[in-house]
Amino acid sequence: MTTLAISGLIRPLLEPQLQAKYSGDLDVRWFMTHEEALEAVKGAEIGWFDMNEKEAMAAALHAATDLKWLNSIYAGLDFLPMDVLIERGITVTNGVGINAITIAEYTIMGMLNIAKGYRQVMRAQERREWLMDSPGKRELAGSKALLLGYGAIGKLIKPRLEAFDVDVTVVRRSGGEGVLTPDQWRGQLGEFDWVILAVPSTPETENMIGADELAAMKRECVLVNIARGEVVDQPALIEALKSRSIEGAFLDVTTPEPLPSDHELWTLDNAHISMHLSGRAQNMMFIRSAQRFLENLAKYQRGEPLSPIFDPKLGY
Amino acid sequence: MTTLAISGLIRPLLEPQLQAKYSGDLDVRWFMTHEEALEAVKGAEIGWFDMNEKEAMAAALHAATDLKWLNSIYAGLDFLPMDVLIERGITVTNGVGINAITIAEYTIMGMLNIAKGYRQVMRAQERREWLMDSPGKRELAGSKALLLGYGAIGKLIKPRLEAFDVDVTVVRRSGGEGVLTPDQWRGQLGEFDWVILAVPSTPETENMIGADELAAMKRECVLVNIARGEVVDQPALIEALKSRSIEGAFLDVTTPEPLPSDHELWTLDNAHISMHLSGRAQNMMFIRSAQRFLENLAKYQRGEPLSPIFDPKLGY
Repeated sequence: MTTLAISGLIRPLLEPQLQAKYSGDLDVRWFMTHEEALEAVKGAEIGWFDMNEKEAMAAALHAATDLKWLNSIYAGLDFLPMDVLIERGITVTNGVGINAITIAEYTIMGMLNIAKGYRQVMRAQERREWLMDSPGKRELAGSKALLLGYGAIGKLIKPRLEAFDVDVTVVRRSGGEGVLTPDQWRGQLGEFDWVILAVPSTPETENMIGADELAAMKRECVLVNIARGEVVDQPALIEALKSRSIEGAFLDVTTPEPLPSDHELWTLDNAHISMHLSGRAQNMMFIRSAQRFLENLAKYQRGEPLSPIFDPKLGY
Repeated sequence: MTTLAISGLIRPLLEPQLQAKYSGDLDVRWFMTHEEALEAVKGAEIGWFDMNEKEAMAAALHAATDLKWLNSIYAGLDFLPMDVLIERGITVTNGVGINAITIAEYTIMGMLNIAKGYRQVMRAQERREWLMDSPGKRELAGSKALLLGYGAIGKLIKPRLEAFDVDVTVVRRSGGEGVLTPDQWRGQLGEFDWVILAVPSTPETENMIGADELAAMKRECVLVNIARGEVVDQPALIEALKSRSIEGAFLDVTTPEPLPSDHELWTLDNAHISMHLSGRAQNMMFIRSAQRFLENLAKYQRGEPLSPIFDPKLGY
C-alpha cells in the first residue's frame, strides 16, 4: 500500500481515475487546509502539495519526512527549501512545459501590443474616440529578437516569432548556427529590437539584466520578461524606462509579486505589467498536469524513471 | 514627354528618384490642394491621386480625361467611380499587399487579446491592481479558424495562425484539401472558434455575415473583421454581441467610419474596435508603395504589363 498526500485542489481531476485504476492499492489522503496538510503528509511516500500559499507548501515538505517523490504543477520551485529536497534525496517532478503554450502565446501578444501601440487604441475606445493614425507603427516582420532561455517555453516562442518573419537568435550553452553562447550575447545586445527573458530562476540568472545590459540595448529595444522578476535589476530597468534609453518593457513578472499599489512601475507608460498571468491564461493546465501525474504514477509503480525531473541542485 | 499628376503627399519619397532616373523625360505635376489637383490632372497620362479625402480623389479622376494609368496606395478602391475607370479603359494599379503584413500581425494580436482577456489586464494596470487570475483562459493552440478571403492578407494570416497550432480552414472558389468552397462554409459555421473576414469589398461580399450566419456560429465564436464594415450586417452583429450568442468581435472596420461617438458599438464590452488602424500600424507602407510605383513606371515606359492590377469590373 503506497501512501499519497495530495492537495484537495487537484482532487476532482484525479480521484475518479485513481479509484478506477488503483482501487485498494493506494492510500490517498486529500487535504484542504494547512493544518490538514501537516497531518496528511506524515508517512506519505508520494506528495503533491500545491496550495495557494507557497509558505504552506514549504511547511508541508518539511513535515513530510518519509517523502520519496514530490510532484508539482509549477515549473519554478525556488520557493521550496532546496536543502531539504537534496538531503532527503526526494525525486521531484515539476510542471515544466505544462503552461508553456499559453506563455508563448502571451509573449507574442505582448510584443504585438507594444509594436502596434494597442494600449492607446483600447483607451481610445473607452473614450469613444476614433483614432486617425496608429499609435504604434512597428512590424514584427524584419525585426530581430534575442531569446535568452531555450527550455520548454523558449522552444515554443521561437517558431511562433519566425512565422512572423522575426529573426530569432537563441542563447544556448552548446552554441550552433544562429545561436550565441552565454559569453557572447552581451557583446551583441545592441543589435536586437526585442530581448526576451525565458530563463529559469537560478543564482546564475539573478540580475542577469542590469544597468550595463540595459545601456547596451538600442533605444528601440523592448525587454520582455516572462521568466522571473529577479532576473532583472528592477531599479535599473525603471531608470531605463523613465529615461527612455529603451523603448518599453513587457513584464509578466516583477519584484515583488504582487506589486504594491504604490510601486512606481505601475505608473510608467512604457511598462506593460501582466501580473504573472501568462501561464494562467488557459484552462488546460490542471487537466494536463493531472494526466502527467497519472502517467508518472504508473511509471513509479513499475519502478521506471519519472519525467520531467526538477533538480534541486540546479534549481530547474 | 509623359505627363504625370501626383499628390504632393508622395513627393518626398518619389521626386529624388524620378529626377535621377527620368530627368527631362517626364513632366511631373505635384499638387497639394483639391483645386491644384483638378488643374494638374488635365492632360496627365499617369496619375497617383491619393489624398486624405476620398471625394477629392474621385473628383480628380473625373477631371483626368486623358488618364491611361492610375496608381493608388490603397487596396480597396470602391470609393472611386468604377464606371469612369471602365469607360475610359484606365489601367489601375493598387496597393494590394502593401500593408498586408501589418494587417496579418494585427489580426493575430486581436485574437490573442480576446483569448487572454487582455483588455481587462490593461485596465487593471491602470487601477494598479494585481489580478490573481487571468480574465481570459483560451489558447489559440488547438482552436479552429475559418478564414474567408485568401488574398494577400489571408495568405499571411494562415501560416501565422498555423504556427500557433490553429487549425485553419480557408474558403476559396477552387476548393482543395482543407478548403471550403463558397457554397459550403455556411453549413459548417458552427465548428469554428474564430471566423476571420479578409474578403474584398464587393457587392457579393456585402452583408455576407448576417443574422443567419451569426446564429449558426457557436457561443464561443469570435468574429474578426479586417475586411470592410459592409461585409457584416452590423445591427445583427450588435444583437449577437448583446445577447452573447457569440463571444466577441474584433472589428478593425465598422459602418460608418469614423464611428460616431454615440454609437452603441463603442459600449459593448465584447466588441473590440481598432478604428481601421491595422494597415497603418507600420511605417513601411509609403516606402514600399513608392518603390512599387517606380518599378511599374519603368515597365510602363517599356510597354510591359503592370502589377498588381485592380479590375474595376470585379471591384478588386
